Amino acid sequence: MSGDEFDIIRRYFTRQTVARSDVSLGVGDDGAVLRVGSRTDLVVCVDTLVAGVHFPEQTPPAAIGHKALAVNLSDLAAMGAEAAWATLALTLPARDDHWLGEFARGFFDLAARYNVQLVGGDTTRGPLSVTVQVHGLVPHGAALRRTGARAGDRVYVTGTLGDAGLALRLRQAAAATLRERLDYPQPRIQAGIALRGLATASIDISDGLLADLGHLLAADPLGAVIDVDALPRSAAFLEVIDAPGTGSKPLYYELPLSAGDDYELCFTVPPERCAALEQSLARIDCRCTAIGTIEATPGIRCYRAGGEAYQPSATGYDHFREDPDG
Amino acid sequence: MSGDEFDIIRRYFTRQTVARSDVSLGVGDDGAVLRVGSRTDLVVCVDTLVAGVHFPEQTPPAAIGHKALAVNLSDLAAMGAEAAWATLALTLPARDDHWLGEFARGFFDLAARYNVQLVGGDTTRGPLSVTVQVHGLVPHGAALRRTGARAGDRVYVTGTLGDAGLALRLRQAAAATLRERLDYPQPRIQAGIALRGLATASIDISDGLLADLGHLLAADPLGAVIDVDALPRSAAFLEVIDAPGTGSKPLYYELPLSAGDDYELCFTVPPERCAALEQSLARIDCRCTAIGTIEATPGIRCYRAGGEAYQPSATGYDHFREDPDG
Repeated sequence: MSGDEFDIIRRYFTRQTVARSDVSLGVGDDGAVLRVGSRTDLVVCVDTLVAGVHFPEQTPPAAIGHKALAVNLSDLAAMGAEAAWATLALTLPARDDHWLGEFARGFFDLAARYNVQLVGGDTTRGPLSVTVQVHGLVPHGAALRRTGARAGDRVYVTGTLGDAGLALRLRQAAAATLRERLDYPQPRIQAGIALRGLATASIDISDGLLADLGHLLAADPLGAVIDVDALPRSAAFLEVIDAPGTGSKPLYYELPLSAGDDYELCFTVPPERCAALEQSLARIDCRCTAIGTIEATPGIRCYRAGGEAYQPSATGYDHFREDPDG
Repeated sequence: MSGDEFDIIRRYFTRQTVARSDVSLGVGDDGAVLRVGSRTDLVVCVDTLVAGVHFPEQTPPAAIGHKALAVNLSDLAAMGAEAAWATLALTLPARDDHWLGEFARGFFDLAARYNVQLVGGDTTRGPLSVTVQVHGLVPHGAALRRTGARAGDRVYVTGTLGDAGLALRLRQAAAATLRERLDYPQPRIQAGIALRGLATASIDISDGLLADLGHLLAADPLGAVIDVDALPRSAAFLEVIDAPGTGSKPLYYELPLSAGDDYELCFTVPPERCAALEQSLARIDCRCTAIGTIEATPGIRCYRAGGEAYQPSATGYDHFREDPDG
């Protein structure tokens, strides 16, 4: 969710008069937290992918099926929920059996990996668009939120950043491992569960690190210092960036900071829990990297390893703005 | 859901490998029934409205907001659930503040009436389309389904049929009461709750009586005889149909049988419970009409009051077929 979109939601969709006592967390986080029993909370997330906006028209249908579910599971992961059920609203310009078979394969392969059952849906005719809603379960009160970070907390990210952005930029020229990161993102469900009781706040990085960390900070509000040389980059990413001619040093910083589509988690941890956190993620073989620290002064300040300030040139991707830098 | 659409779902989206023990009812009914506690079941419904397919482009935005929620609440009603939470995935070609304000007003006015809280959403840029998902609650095991009717059960419908179809046909020339039925359908939530423990099967009439009753019957499979003269018609409907010149006797039967968009409930009741059922609906001022009887022989057979067979000319609306009669 980006700046202008966030404003739309805030202006028009938070003015409702209904406030139910069973809603622990409503509009504005990665998902809603709903009270459904004395021991369990229900976490609900919804995301729409539109052809030509969220994925290129020529994206393989299996990748669309995968990604439509994955981006929602990533939201569940950010809240520390275990995935349970999904619904699918699919709008298609015309019936296409090959497309449907491939889409379903991509969707169900990922669903099986996380024990997610498709329980309902709607198919309609119209311009290609996919809305998936996922439902997850979490022990009562244990859901992670965007709010809760405190000054002094360390800022972490899972996995590596910038791979999807680089794949999008290189398109067909991208190496298979990079394209895989763009088309078949793996939601960090196990990592989210491992963060319960350890992280103070959590968000998934879909719009880019700076944009999503910005949402986490704005919730309180707080600030952060980030070491841009500490950002985790994959071997495939470095191979392209370091190559003479094709590489570009600015991209070394800009893609991990702003490109988005990585679907990793960004979370905050008090210093005294960092060792436990790193052990918890090591047990599930999830790479995690400390990239900075929460501060009381609002804003995100980037530094290079040597201590000099780094000024990012963009702050994420906004579907409603023609020129995100404008 | 119509014939071809149902086939798409059946072919591609029921082949999943995951079968969770907490899913009481999955794909194929008006909603899913999910086990979330020892005493309560969660009912989840999702529906998409696409501009130009489900509503004319010039539909007032308040009506779109209302209807996007209403069609989902109608599914909850068919299952006997009490409404609780909603999510909204809104795809817009461009930001339009007047449109958003009116859409939100229509959505929230209806939400307030049924104590539904919007708990999450996603706004994206693309061709206008609205996907709403609603969550309802029902005592464990009490959800009504499409399955469960038995030969000998009486077939009932709530309210009146054909009003929305007539409004769509007359467009701007339709009387306000008819247009209201098309643009601002009222979900039968209270009626659905009143049906718990009395109805054996239930479905909402969104695709037309014949099509939706056909789904209810196909689930078992069973047949039904329908008295087409007993179908409930509103005063506004009869005024148009009976008028010299403007009226049409074939529409007197065809619209209530096939036009759809009425969002009334069709349900079945064993003869010994009919008195209790009629009392239960009278207490909430919900009109209900016995229109026929379930039989063991598959198929829907229509008769006029005098006993002669009536042959309907269409069987509902199919988004994926260019010619529904074809």
